[in-house]
Amino acid sequence: MSEFAALADPPYYAVIFTAQRTDVDEGYAAMAEKMAELALAHPGCLGMETIRNDKGFGITVSYWKTEADILEWKSDAKHLVAQQMGKSAWYEHYILRVARVDRQYDGPEGR
Amino acid sequence: MSEFAALADPPYYAVIFTAQRTDVDEGYAAMAEKMAELALAHPGCLGMETIRNDKGFGITVSYWKTEADILEWKSDAKHLVAQQMGKSAWYEHYILRVARVDRQYDGPEGR
Repeated sequence: MSEFAALADPPYYAVIFTAQRTDVDEGYAAMAEKMAELALAHPGCLGMETIRNDKGFGITVSYWKTEADILEWKSDAKHLVAQQMGKSAWYEHYILRVARVDRQYDGPEGR
Repeated sequence: MSEFAALADPPYYAVIFTAQRTDVDEGYAAMAEKMAELALAHPGCLGMETIRNDKGFGITVSYWKTEADILEWKSDAKHLVAQQMGKSAWYEHYILRVARVDRQYDGPEGR
């Protein structure tokens, strides 16, 4: 699987989630994988790009057709459990930004 | 320095740049550092969050006050040289998305 999310026609929405992990494990990796699967299975989810560095700082950008899709995913019951674990155990700090993608470019041309 | 970009009052703009590096070095690291410095010195730049993994896939999100600031940075002479090197040598593939940040949350509360 490419690490790039496929391009969709703008406008669409991006959730930019940056987070610093704590040292607490408690099933984090399995939950993160499960949540990525669940999000990508949502019909409104266009794709996801994610990286974490060796200091526990991560950037995950997920892309969505509409804001309503984002709100639906936010309130998904399994996701709510994960969010609660994130707040109580896994994340030292996080910022989540919701943005509307208006235009895009890709390249290099011809590759 | 925190790896998080400071929060600003929405609306503001995000440039989400995801890229797969080639194996070509040719001064990439020094140029990347120089470009980050130059962008952050731009009065319209609100901050930047960046990670690259050990497979050469990277996500850099830079934040800007206005779209005009983004266009100004895009056409900066030194940045144009870097962009050209990126296209001809450093990047196997990249996607750049311009988005308007409408809302944000941070947490966990109380930390």
